[in-house]
Amino acid sequence: MKSDLDRLMADRGFDAIVVMGEAEANHSLKYMTNHAKITQGIVVKKHGEAPILIVGGMERDEAAKSGLSVRTMTDFHLYQHIKEAGNLFEGNMRMLGEVFGTFGVSGTVSFYGIDDPGTAFMRLKWLDEMLDSIIVTGETENTLFDEAYATKDAAEIEAIKQVAGDTNRVMAETVDFIRGHRLQDGALVGEDGAPLTVADVKRYVDARLLSYGLEDSGEKIFAVNRDAGVPHSRGEAGDELRLNDCIVFDLFPRSITTGYFHDMTRTFCLGRARPEVQRAYEQVMQAFSAVMDSLEVGKETSFYQNLTCDIFEEHGHKTIRTDPGTEEGYVHSLGHGIGLQIHSNPRFSAYSKETIQPGQVFTVEPGLYYPDQRYGVRIEDSVYVAADGTFHSLTPYPKDLIIPFD
Amino acid sequence: MKSDLDRLMADRGFDAIVVMGEAEANHSLKYMTNHAKITQGIVVKKHGEAPILIVGGMERDEAAKSGLSVRTMTDFHLYQHIKEAGNLFEGNMRMLGEVFGTFGVSGTVSFYGIDDPGTAFMRLKWLDEMLDSIIVTGETENTLFDEAYATKDAAEIEAIKQVAGDTNRVMAETVDFIRGHRLQDGALVGEDGAPLTVADVKRYVDARLLSYGLEDSGEKIFAVNRDAGVPHSRGEAGDELRLNDCIVFDLFPRSITTGYFHDMTRTFCLGRARPEVQRAYEQVMQAFSAVMDSLEVGKETSFYQNLTCDIFEEHGHKTIRTDPGTEEGYVHSLGHGIGLQIHSNPRFSAYSKETIQPGQVFTVEPGLYYPDQRYGVRIEDSVYVAADGTFHSLTPYPKDLIIPFD
Repeated sequence: MKSDLDRLMADRGFDAIVVMGEAEANHSLKYMTNHAKITQGIVVKKHGEAPILIVGGMERDEAAKSGLSVRTMTDFHLYQHIKEAGNLFEGNMRMLGEVFGTFGVSGTVSFYGIDDPGTAFMRLKWLDEMLDSIIVTGETENTLFDEAYATKDAAEIEAIKQVAGDTNRVMAETVDFIRGHRLQDGALVGEDGAPLTVADVKRYVDARLLSYGLEDSGEKIFAVNRDAGVPHSRGEAGDELRLNDCIVFDLFPRSITTGYFHDMTRTFCLGRARPEVQRAYEQVMQAFSAVMDSLEVGKETSFYQNLTCDIFEEHGHKTIRTDPGTEEGYVHSLGHGIGLQIHSNPRFSAYSKETIQPGQVFTVEPGLYYPDQRYGVRIEDSVYVAADGTFHSLTPYPKDLIIPFD
Repeated sequence: MKSDLDRLMADRGFDAIVVMGEAEANHSLKYMTNHAKITQGIVVKKHGEAPILIVGGMERDEAAKSGLSVRTMTDFHLYQHIKEAGNLFEGNMRMLGEVFGTFGVSGTVSFYGIDDPGTAFMRLKWLDEMLDSIIVTGETENTLFDEAYATKDAAEIEAIKQVAGDTNRVMAETVDFIRGHRLQDGALVGEDGAPLTVADVKRYVDARLLSYGLEDSGEKIFAVNRDAGVPHSRGEAGDELRLNDCIVFDLFPRSITTGYFHDMTRTFCLGRARPEVQRAYEQVMQAFSAVMDSLEVGKETSFYQNLTCDIFEEHGHKTIRTDPGTEEGYVHSLGHGIGLQIHSNPRFSAYSKETIQPGQVFTVEPGLYYPDQRYGVRIEDSVYVAADGTFHSLTPYPKDLIIPFD
């Protein structure tokens, strides 16, 4: 959590960190600025000291809501630097040099945030070469933000509980909406006899999300039959829902206010399930329960990915352990942390070296995929680990496979 | 436009470009992949050749909708590289090396997209040092994508016209919504006597945007009195609207389907305007009309920023030309291009070296700001330049200052 940042900096030998860039999709900037509604900014934090936020003058009032100490770019003579340098790039870099000088930033400085990679390469090379007092670095894996994000403080847990409760409500309302249709020649139709399409369902979901102050930042998955068999296929807008259809519905909205995500998936068969789908569902539920029942603080996350592979392989499925890159069977990792990012630490892959710890919030989402047999099954709950090491599901919505139609 | 990419690469001496990273807020990746719904990807384009898109296997079907030639990371042995390298970072870099080898990418390669800046620095340093056949570079200003974005092809213009029409409709509906309230002791109240707040208006706007398939990616500005005087203040949710209030309403949604933005601002006074607001409005309209009437293909964009400064200075206002960093008077630049980004080329600042060209779509948005006098005024239309050099407003909604209440 955020209070770990100084320890995480010390572990890595960083004297200061800089978080920069535009705000959209900039998780570390949002994290450091407490989700202030700025369009871009620079946060500078020296080890053991409070962070400072630097923004354009037009954004000073929104920036102040971060609770950080705020300075404007004009305070560090941005316009003068641009004029002297003759271009925006070097003017901005010189201003950053002045910021470092003013606050006595020296030693190893690690950079985070969002940038165009080529631009970042040029910027950081410039700083590394032109400023004698600092050594520029960056992180490539398990960055200090990844580690900080992996555990949540009480306020973050509350924010996630809020979005989780509302997401479960939208899931329930959507199933009711689908059930509000009737069968006609094997197709689901509304009062007016018009067929129910994937686009209709998504429109309904969007309106319900909005009513709770949630937004769909990526795009929800409501994928039917073959599409359900490809984990990241979103669903075809024009697909009409029919009896026997197999649907993977993966809903992962975030709060417009707090920026926190919840993530859940249910698989539904309309009216009845084909025998192979029913069997896959039971096997997915077996893996799901085996994982949930054995969650334990201190255990490696890779243990649970391997446990899931064990179960699926025993049932004769290919897995990414036996067949890396397979597009049938169990084709992904078991779960991931959620927070201000939809995918964060801890990662539940075979490569992960993390362990389960109090404060984590993560998904558990085993699945089986057979696109050529026109189905996929995935069941996903989000779970948080309380300070006392107990596990709590954030996803109470039932896991029934069948949505009954007469 | 996109068909300029080979020319723009040649101008810069680039043998290949690479666009990479997560898809959220990744304008260049969305541009190159025609807004395909992938969560991340790598596009490699050699000079004079068609681009290739590389994604994770789970996203192959969504990736195919880009119309590009699609390969999966497994095709380039990602899992084997990770295993051999012993870590994800180097495994991914080795895979990219294999991609370059397979497609014969050599010479100067420039990188784009989105990444954590520190990570990008480490990645590009690795590629530069480990791959003998390529020289890694990036761009810092007026990148080839900035230049390509600055002009739109016919399909892009159509997409922007669509979102523009719908945004104008939401603006009109919102004014009707506000007018649907009545005055009670100087406050706007609904049928039930409850005061109308900024949050109520924003909720109404969100629902209307959604009904047109638009989303509010940043956050609309509906800022009252002092907040209206600070250009990027978003408005306080709890503020109750009252007679005489001065409101800056800046609406810049994007289409969920196409990703294109429209951007418009109106300033409203409820019932009546204070004399100083009325005067500022007239001066802003004078600058607005002077710019619109003198738009001309081939002219430098900086000319129009200077023209605006001339007019405001003549009326005794500070401008960022006379007082760089001023927080009163005219405190920003005149406009910016719009497209898949809300801010792109051409830029209408005093530093810009661009000229007006057919195919551009940009905002014209003069404003005057006096936070301590509790008001700001900004009027903004978006304009496109047709192939024949004629100028067309995308923002027909009236510019009346007063919303009448009896």
